[in-house]
Order: sequence, then structure tokens, then C-alpha cells
Amino acid sequence: MKRAFTKDQTWLQCMDCGYRADLLNERFFRCPKCQGLYDIHHDLNPPLKALARVYELERPDLTYKRVFDFRAGKGTSWSGPVLSSGVWRFKELIMPYLPEKHIISLQEGNVPIVRAGKYLRQWVGDSIDLYIILEGQSPTGSFKDFGGTVMMSIAKAAGIEAVCCASTGDTSAMAAAYAAAANIRCAVLLPKGKVTPAQLVQPLIYGARVITLPGDFDDCMRVMQHLVTNYRIYPANSLNPSRIEGHQVTVFLIAQNFEWELPDWIAVPVGNGSNCSSVGKGLRLMSQVGFKVKTKILGCQSQAANPLALSWKNAISIQEWQNAYKSIKVGETTATAARIGNPVSCKKVMREITLSNGEMQTASEKDLNEAVAICGRDGYFVCPQTGIALAGVKNAVRDGQIQKNERVVVVSTATGLKFTDSASNNLKKEIISAPSCKTETVLNLIMHT
Amino acid sequence: MKRAFTKDQTWLQCMDCGYRADLLNERFFRCPKCQGLYDIHHDLNPPLKALARVYELERPDLTYKRVFDFRAGKGTSWSGPVLSSGVWRFKELIMPYLPEKHIISLQEGNVPIVRAGKYLRQWVGDSIDLYIILEGQSPTGSFKDFGGTVMMSIAKAAGIEAVCCASTGDTSAMAAAYAAAANIRCAVLLPKGKVTPAQLVQPLIYGARVITLPGDFDDCMRVMQHLVTNYRIYPANSLNPSRIEGHQVTVFLIAQNFEWELPDWIAVPVGNGSNCSSVGKGLRLMSQVGFKVKTKILGCQSQAANPLALSWKNAISIQEWQNAYKSIKVGETTATAARIGNPVSCKKVMREITLSNGEMQTASEKDLNEAVAICGRDGYFVCPQTGIALAGVKNAVRDGQIQKNERVVVVSTATGLKFTDSASNNLKKEIISAPSCKTETVLNLIMHT
Repeated sequence: MKRAFTKDQTWLQCMDCGYRADLLNERFFRCPKCQGLYDIHHDLNPPLKALARVYELERPDLTYKRVFDFRAGKGTSWSGPVLSSGVWRFKELIMPYLPEKHIISLQEGNVPIVRAGKYLRQWVGDSIDLYIILEGQSPTGSFKDFGGTVMMSIAKAAGIEAVCCASTGDTSAMAAAYAAAANIRCAVLLPKGKVTPAQLVQPLIYGARVITLPGDFDDCMRVMQHLVTNYRIYPANSLNPSRIEGHQVTVFLIAQNFEWELPDWIAVPVGNGSNCSSVGKGLRLMSQVGFKVKTKILGCQSQAANPLALSWKNAISIQEWQNAYKSIKVGETTATAARIGNPVSCKKVMREITLSNGEMQTASEKDLNEAVAICGRDGYFVCPQTGIALAGVKNAVRDGQIQKNERVVVVSTATGLKFTDSASNNLKKEIISAPSCKTETVLNLIMHT
Repeated sequence: MKRAFTKDQTWLQCMDCGYRADLLNERFFRCPKCQGLYDIHHDLNPPLKALARVYELERPDLTYKRVFDFRAGKGTSWSGPVLSSGVWRFKELIMPYLPEKHIISLQEGNVPIVRAGKYLRQWVGDSIDLYIILEGQSPTGSFKDFGGTVMMSIAKAAGIEAVCCASTGDTSAMAAAYAAAANIRCAVLLPKGKVTPAQLVQPLIYGARVITLPGDFDDCMRVMQHLVTNYRIYPANSLNPSRIEGHQVTVFLIAQNFEWELPDWIAVPVGNGSNCSSVGKGLRLMSQVGFKVKTKILGCQSQAANPLALSWKNAISIQEWQNAYKSIKVGETTATAARIGNPVSCKKVMREITLSNGEMQTASEKDLNEAVAICGRDGYFVCPQTGIALAGVKNAVRDGQIQKNERVVVVSTATGLKFTDSASNNLKKEIISAPSCKTETVLNLIMHT
């Protein structure tokens, strides 16, 4: 099979020691020299020069704006992913050398960025200029689709036959849907007896092989690692750096929404850390290609799973943070998708928060649930992880980190429709029982409760 | 309060006797003379003339195309609904006289129209050119948002204080979300003991008053009718013709997707009939303003609830159909949202199917469930009602109604995430139990099952 791109065009590079590896053939996803995490790098000059020639404006960033603005809204069933996907609109920035024929897209990424409603503005503090990017309005209902489309396109370009993950949540849904679109096998490994069919509806409907093992989650992870290392099975989990390339688009979409002026803050929930890593990488990339960037990242964790927030201190260096960091035993939380005591990408989170002069916040369980309820009152049904980020913003306003009139965009990572169990438990007490079927009785309940 | 528009600009008109009523003050939603259904009419000449002057092209339809194409993809948090909503992009066609300040939008309507995947094409018959408009990628997860944004905007313009419905499904979710955005009270009336909190998560999270009555569904409907007739409570159910105006956008989005060439067929599931009514009205409107329209409507019902398909015969006149029509006692089906034995809008369905030279089809329970599963294999998780329309298309190909190379667009009414119970029951048998944690055993299950 002809290589989709060369190792000099797009490659993997260890974030710690600089070791380079081949994105299309590497399978272990940890640096063999020092066990560091990989970043993806591109030789951006040729694609950006080509792009700059489109309009031949004086400053290249003006051309980028015009090209990306032109592409938005041009999508049809026929027009190809660069026009129809909100992720591939930014192809030159995320995967410039990948031939378009390899792209696996479900028309993801055209998501709304809405101003916070009345109730949320009151709850957070009305002095700031608050927005939410609703990434849950995606093919599989979560932000993972942004990364999924890039990951599965690379898998296709690399000739992968099967992808694999060990997840009951958004990752398995995303992996299964994009694998279906790519006509690649997908396997989801899970401990037997620990999961319900309801948790697995999405991977099953998308035709993934959902396989239960006679063991625990660690056994599933161990088997998956063997499959990845020895049998060319592609991992769909957070270690896979292709996903990060797609998630950077969160930053580009936000910039485009505000006529290419970046906000003061982007607030994200931190579970395994891929959101935070990619927002930071996207901000650095925008700065590198000529945009003015002053955005700080607010990383937010729940009280039940806050190893990064616990070890963070203002003005800490990456090295000091790494020294202070300890993984923790997680507690109970409704924000199950971010219930992680030792995030895979924790070093990348430390790098991006520090480089952006950002901050970390911890959200209490009460606050994160309240945030979801308050958002609902404004007409938006978001997931509990979004609640973490919203509560984090509230705390950051209280603590004076976010200041008056600053513009803040919160990343809403999934639709609330994927987390109805926790919501329905909190809400059933709200159902009103009418004592009779008299119209006046019901009218009174409508107008005066 | 100043009127938002006059009775000569936008009005209600009985589809049977032509009686006119005031959209902003009418509450009963049945013609007082003959109990007929209302249509909404507009004096379209002034707004369309104004629009035609934008580019001053020879043919006005060329200008409409250019204006609507310009607006697509221009949306930001600030730009207002005409640029940011896929529904209000077509404001001149759906509610031309409504001042923009009354519009209540959640940035709905920017939904993908995708070509059917490999498995679905095989299942339906690969000789046709098949697409799906995924209307479930909407704020509340169903097509109802298209109508909801228009209905709630009219409610706001009319000074309504509370809306009401008796529904456990997509209608209550839509009504509650848009009422929240409009800061209007919303009540959902339901029989006590017949519904679970899980069914009500969306109305509850959006802050609706969910009120259970000591009675059955008929009591809820009776109380609602009293509230509507005597206390200026606004009905959010299918009778409300404002919803139809928004649903017409399905046709305009499809036209725009295919560079303003309408497909041969649009296939819709028929429950209460609002989808079918609005697609027909939208097609007639496009023809009226100068587009070439030859699209036929394929109305599809499940075997469990097919009063319209049962009474329909090819080349039947509206009058003959009405004479043959009988309401039926519904059976069991997974497509619960279309389980209706006497559709509210049945006369409108008859009108639109007949005027478009369309057809009716009945989908078997086996076929509609199979269609959902097949769609999943291509990476799309759709609701059982979408399954009805897909199975209807399959039957229409088999019966020679849809012919070789014809272009067909299926309306997918909601995301499968709203109907996981039926899906998970069908799917749990698909879970594979590995006999051991050996890597080779698992690999074998991945690659050879």
C-alpha cells in the first residue's frame, strides 16, 4: 500500500525526549526511550504557504480566515468533508498531508456556540461574558467525534483492520460509529457482569463486537495492550494522539465564532485530559500561524477525581507540578466520564495549563449537579461533565481568577441525553401530583408553583 | 401590546371552508364553522418582492437561492437567528412578518443530509439514490425543534404566559426547552402512575411543570382543552399550525443541499401527520415562488398504526380517501411515537399525498427494527420512526413505486439516543462472552465473528 504521507510531513514526537516515530506504523503510543507521551507534528510550511496563495493577502492569517469562513456552510451530501465537516474545514491545521480519499467523516463539528442563558448568567456571576460550545450536538452525542473522525481517517490510511477500546462510555460509542463508517472492525472489551446492555446500546447498534471477559477492567486493559502491541489492533483510547489533532478544532470554531478574536478563557472538564491537551495545542498552533492569542485555559475537575487540581498551585512550573502530582483513589460522582484518578494525558494537561497561564478548579458535587439543572432552565440539556466546567467557572469568578467583563467559553462535552439516569434520579421529586382533574386546580398548579 | 403583524399579513384559514381567523388570538385551533383544520397563510408578495430586490436578478428564484446560500454558515453567537438557525434562514418563506426580536431560537436546523451507507443501500435496493436528513441532531434530539422554534416565537409575539401539552415524548421535550428559552411557563399533563421519571427527564430538566392527574390520557386531553379554550393557555400539540410552518424547512434544506434541485421522493413516517403535512405545504410553497417541483411524498406507517395506509389506494381522490378512512385500534410497536390510530392531521396528510401524486406504505415490525439496525451498521443511530420510513422506501422499491435511479430523501425524525430501551432489548443477545482472558481467544472473536 502506498504511504498516505511521509515521515517528514507528519510524525510522532515524544513530548519529553524528542524521539521521533512514524504515525502510520507506531502501535505502542509511548516513547520506547523514556515512556513519554507522543505529540503529532507536521511540517506546516508547505500547506500553509499553499493556503496563503489562495487570496495572496499581505498577512497569511487574513487568508486563513477568509478560506475557513468561505468553507463554513457550503456543505452538502456531495461536497466532501472539507466543506461539510466542521472539523475538516480546518484540514490544513489538523492533518494537512492526509489525502482526502482517506477521510472518514459523519459530518461532525457544525455545533452551536450559544450565549449563556439568563439563569446560568445569574448563577455564575453576571459580570462575565459567558458562552457554551455545545459539542454534544454531534453524530454520537459527544465531543469525542471531533477526535474520532481524525483517528479513524488515520486508521484507514494506515491500513488498519480492527480498532479496540475498553470503555462503557463516549469513547466506545465514537469508536464504533466511525469504525462502521470506515468499514473497519471495532471491538469493545469489558469485564463480564459489570455492565448493562443499556450502557452498550451505541457500540452494539454501530455493529461493534462487544466482548465481555472473565476478569476485571485491568484484565481488559492488559488484553487490549497485547492486541495493540502484537497484532496491529489500533487503540481508540486517549493514548492515541490522532484524536488530539481533531479536538483542537474546538479552539478554531470558537475563534471563528468570535470573528477570529479569541476569548479570555476556555473552560474544560478534565478526565483523562484530552480536551485540555488539545485546547492548549490548538491555541499554540493559532499563535504559531500568526493569530493573537491570550486565552487562558481553566481546567476543571470534580471533587471525586481531582488529582490535577489538588497538586496545582498558581504560578507553579511544569516541573514543580509534576513533583507535587499524585494519583488518587476516586470517589463517587455523577460525572462518571471524568471519574479518573490518574489521567493518561496528565503531563500534557500540566504543559498546556502552565503555558497558557491558566488555572485549575475543583467543582463540588452539589455545584456540578446544580449547574446541569440551571442550564436546563435556559433550554440546554448538558452532561454532568459540562457541569464540572460550569461550576469551575463559577468558582474562578468567586476567586477573582476570571475578572469582570472577561469573555469565557465553556466546552460542553456531551448531550445530557447520554446521562439520563443521574438526571432522572435528581428530578423525580419535581413531578407535581394534582389532587383532582379540575381545570382550575391544574391551572393553579401551572401558574403558581 | 402592539400587534406583531396584521391579520392581512399572516392569518389562519380553514382548509375546508376557507373561514379566516387571527393567528395571534385564536386559541381553539379548529374552525368554529365546520371544525376543519387551519392552515397558516401569508401575503407573500411584499416580503418576496423585497427579497428579490437584494440582487435584482431576472428570475426571483435565483435571488432566493443566492440569499439563502449566503446565510448558511454565517451564524455566530451574535448574528441573530436568520444567520445562525437553519430554520430561520428561510424566514421570508415561513413567517415573513414576525419581527426578529420575537424569535426564540436554540440554533436548531443545521442538520446533516447524508448519503445512505453501504449496508442500507444494499438493504433497500442499490438501484436508487438514497439520502437521509438527520433531524435528530437538534437541540432536543428530534425534528420537533423545527416547529418548536416557530411555535414558541408566535407564542412570545402573542403575549402567551403558559404553554401546555399532554405528551411523554418528543413534543413535551421540545415544548419545555423552547418555553425555557422564551421564559414562558410550560406544563406537561400526564395520567398518574402511567409514566416513569426516565420518560420525563427532558421536560423536567428544562423546568416544565410536569403534572400527573388522577385519571387517564383522555382526562389530560380534556383538561388541556379547557385550559386552552378558557384560560389562554397555548397548546403545544400537533393541532397548533405554527409548528407546520417551521417543519416546511425540511423541504428547503433538502433543496439547498442538492443545489436547489428537488429530489424525486421525500419519505416520512406518519404519526399525527405533521411531518407529511409540512413537507407537502413546503413543496407547494416552493412551486408557488418559482421553483420546479416534481417531488412525490411517500407517507409511511407501521403495521400497528396504519389507518392512512390502510384506506389509501393508488390514484384515489382526497374525497374518496376521506370516505374510505377509518380510525383504528392501535397494536404494539417499538415505534411508539407514531402509534396513533386517528391522526390529528389526517386530512392534511390526505391532501398532501394526493396533491404530490405520492404513495402510502406500511412497514412491518420486523422491517422497521431491521432498518434501525442496518442504519447503525453504517454509523447512524436513528429512532424507530425513521425505521418506518426506511422500511417504507424498501417496500416502495419492491412495488415499483420508486423507480431505478430516482433520488429519495428519508426524513430521520429523532436520534436513537431517545429510544434506547427498544434498541437495547433487541441488542443484548449480540454481546459476546469470551471463555477466557487469553489474547488469542479475544483476537479470534474480534476477527472471526
